[in-house]
Amino acid sequence: MNTKELIKKYREYYKVNEMISNTLSIIGFEDETDAPKKAHKEREEILNYFYMEYFKRTTSNEYLGLLEEMKKHYDSLPPLYQRAVTLDLKDVERDRKVPEQVAKEAQKVMNQSSYYWKEAKQNDDYSIWAPYFKEVIHYSKVLAKYYGAVDNSYYNTYLDMYEEGTSEKELDIFFDKLKKRIVPLLKKVMNSKVNIRTDFLHTRVNKSQQEKLGKLTAKSIGYDFSRGMLKETEHPFTNGLTHNDVRITTHYYENDWTSNVYSCAHEGGHGIYEQNLNKKYEGTSVYGACSMAFHESQSRFFENIIAKNKNFVNYIFPKYKKIIPSTLKDVSVEEFYKAINKVQPSLIRTEADELTYCLHIIVRYEIEKLIFNNDDIDVNDLPRIWNEKYKEYLGITPPSDKEGILQDVHWSTGFGYFFSYAVGNAYSAQIYHKMKEELDVDKLLSEGKVNVIKDWLTKNIYSEARMLSPKELIKKVTGEDLNPDYYCDYLENKYSEIYELEKDE
Amino acid sequence: MNTKELIKKYREYYKVNEMISNTLSIIGFEDETDAPKKAHKEREEILNYFYMEYFKRTTSNEYLGLLEEMKKHYDSLPPLYQRAVTLDLKDVERDRKVPEQVAKEAQKVMNQSSYYWKEAKQNDDYSIWAPYFKEVIHYSKVLAKYYGAVDNSYYNTYLDMYEEGTSEKELDIFFDKLKKRIVPLLKKVMNSKVNIRTDFLHTRVNKSQQEKLGKLTAKSIGYDFSRGMLKETEHPFTNGLTHNDVRITTHYYENDWTSNVYSCAHEGGHGIYEQNLNKKYEGTSVYGACSMAFHESQSRFFENIIAKNKNFVNYIFPKYKKIIPSTLKDVSVEEFYKAINKVQPSLIRTEADELTYCLHIIVRYEIEKLIFNNDDIDVNDLPRIWNEKYKEYLGITPPSDKEGILQDVHWSTGFGYFFSYAVGNAYSAQIYHKMKEELDVDKLLSEGKVNVIKDWLTKNIYSEARMLSPKELIKKVTGEDLNPDYYCDYLENKYSEIYELEKDE
Repeated sequence: MNTKELIKKYREYYKVNEMISNTLSIIGFEDETDAPKKAHKEREEILNYFYMEYFKRTTSNEYLGLLEEMKKHYDSLPPLYQRAVTLDLKDVERDRKVPEQVAKEAQKVMNQSSYYWKEAKQNDDYSIWAPYFKEVIHYSKVLAKYYGAVDNSYYNTYLDMYEEGTSEKELDIFFDKLKKRIVPLLKKVMNSKVNIRTDFLHTRVNKSQQEKLGKLTAKSIGYDFSRGMLKETEHPFTNGLTHNDVRITTHYYENDWTSNVYSCAHEGGHGIYEQNLNKKYEGTSVYGACSMAFHESQSRFFENIIAKNKNFVNYIFPKYKKIIPSTLKDVSVEEFYKAINKVQPSLIRTEADELTYCLHIIVRYEIEKLIFNNDDIDVNDLPRIWNEKYKEYLGITPPSDKEGILQDVHWSTGFGYFFSYAVGNAYSAQIYHKMKEELDVDKLLSEGKVNVIKDWLTKNIYSEARMLSPKELIKKVTGEDLNPDYYCDYLENKYSEIYELEKDE
Repeated sequence: MNTKELIKKYREYYKVNEMISNTLSIIGFEDETDAPKKAHKEREEILNYFYMEYFKRTTSNEYLGLLEEMKKHYDSLPPLYQRAVTLDLKDVERDRKVPEQVAKEAQKVMNQSSYYWKEAKQNDDYSIWAPYFKEVIHYSKVLAKYYGAVDNSYYNTYLDMYEEGTSEKELDIFFDKLKKRIVPLLKKVMNSKVNIRTDFLHTRVNKSQQEKLGKLTAKSIGYDFSRGMLKETEHPFTNGLTHNDVRITTHYYENDWTSNVYSCAHEGGHGIYEQNLNKKYEGTSVYGACSMAFHESQSRFFENIIAKNKNFVNYIFPKYKKIIPSTLKDVSVEEFYKAINKVQPSLIRTEADELTYCLHIIVRYEIEKLIFNNDDIDVNDLPRIWNEKYKEYLGITPPSDKEGILQDVHWSTGFGYFFSYAVGNAYSAQIYHKMKEELDVDKLLSEGKVNVIKDWLTKNIYSEARMLSPKELIKKVTGEDLNPDYYCDYLENKYSEIYELEKDE
């Protein structure tokens, strides 16, 4: 075959992979939103079936042979296909190491676990999930052994999967730097005499009003509803199927209405990334976000740096007021801005202010290390360990597992993801710093012109899709490697102003 | 293989067929409800792909071989599998006559047509759909030629597919009988001096109130929401995937709120049938409704005989009043009962009263015969022919195609279905007649005890699933063959009372 024929064959094969994977997304999405609850088991069977079809296709001899053939013609392939074959071969070679039966069992465990995690959370009963969580830990280690350790660490295996080249060693240094600057800053903030009222954040706002607020927010930051949708799930997430189908979810708490607003900004940020990927890469594995930390950099960017920015708040607050006039009757824009940025060590990661957020991640990172570096971790000890770490880093103890170890969906299917939020935060501030050299961000936000910012991000980040590794991309966009100082500077500036702190010399 | 092994193999094979067919339903359902409009093309590709996977599996040599092997062991099979192999072989042998390429093209045409039919209806522009409709006609004939004519008629091929043993000849007689009794009865009703007010049916009722009314109605007749869901689509339908997943849809017209109420009763009736099929047949082709006319007999039964019954109206009207108090402020239950049963020749089949309903079906039946019995029918003539027939049978002419030929979804994917509604009506009255010999239906309805009626239907009809042919089932349930006189008697009694007609001796 010549390269043209090879490419054609690759695209045909890849197309079906993509259709099956989108099918999994569609059925899974309905299962989490509107599907009749009693039909979950049948649906799980379908998900398992297609997962195995997908696994078989993406680990087949035919596919490997095709990719190896492309690899042989590497030099004559256009750059897009050079990158595609590199990305795909890495995945295929890794996944082929897992026997089909093991992959099947593991997938079944993950599906069950994610269902029972939800049950457990809703009933605030860790014991419902514990046996499945135990199996998730077991299978995560089993799979890692098949994949192979990276630098003698099975935890690294997963870290590298989410963010090429990331390791425990690197993250230990990264988190250390964050701790060194965030912990003292937090202490100063907590000692500040500034009083921030938040009563109006906890007035009851009904679902239909909340839906309007969420949609307005997502739309105002640039999420395109004609190529997406918003639904409610237990845990908010984004599902990017194709350029034209990028769906986001939120969760409505009647007595905490800004939770939904900033969930919509967060998932909207993920959605904006997916909606603005470079179309010319569609139909290949290059079409997608650069890495999960880059993905989180965009969700965190839109949730915090944009949606909680003073100038943007000035712009959007009157619109919120129109939707819930009685709730915001006596509230000034200044009061609102301070309320949504109030620092308060708390139990729930997704609700955390920007300053304490990374401490939540550190808790999870340390527990994941513990799980991977101990062969005989007892799943029944983990709620206690969780609570102890919250006491240590945030000074508070969850009164129940619902507000403790059960709060996040992630561990219901595996490990190694959480650091992406913290690295994402750091990326977002580093990118923001660069962006401000080129755009008058404050002015744009005060005028509601977020589309100019979106265009800048599209040009610099989204259009690259997966052509570059995360380390290459951050360097290309900002001119340097990941540097958490930008994030710490950003936090210091923002909170010094809000809490009227004296800056260190 | 012994029969036990054969059965095991059959169930395994059938399971995957079922999963793929349910996947088609889930993706198709989302496409018609919540999926981003711009993602339709990608979704169509997925539907086409799985349709072909389904086609390949259900026409494969492997499947045929398995069924033929079962056929050889027919006498030693349990009755369930005897029936399953009979039903499946009929389908497989028919479908295998169609070359894969033709099946693929036909399916693509149907998918496109159903999309552009919706566009055409929404824009009231027949020309958007016409080229696709032409292709539907073409492919329906092409497929029928592969399937083979029944009694020299390709139209019979489709009639028999929907209702085993039904033919043009039989239906001509059936419709003649209906015409002979309905047309004079309608004339009498139209000459009656009884005045029925309907102003309150056209007061604006918003979507969220309508949703409550629809859900209340469906629930009150016995549809189980914990194993289903209600959404809005252009044309209401029911989708039965499994015992636990039977979804219904409706359409909200703000100035015609009872349209939604009785759509929910209609689709609820379909849903009740699907939700109460005999579980022991699951996993085989015997699991399903007996025939489409039987399906419609249940939807029409719950929509009309139950939901528009005087005693049921007495029971539910106060509940409607609670949801829309201002709309029903000055309305008596008697006025409401008469309004929803008012006879008025009209343009839209789904909105038609019970008396004129069958005339709408006759129009469609005659046009279908025309299409199949003419080789050179011009698709551009059909709106005119449609309008002429409405003038002939109902005395009115549609002012636009939206209220004419574009109103129904059915022809967007094929022909031969409509008669099921009329035969369904006849079945429903015949079954009702039998039911009243055993149950005090009026008393049950006035007390809202529809579950007793549902249980009777479950025992007599739903539990049979597809074990019997429709002709066998109607005989088993009522002791005689299809007899439209019961339906005509029912209409005569009901409308004589409402319109104070003198009965013929």
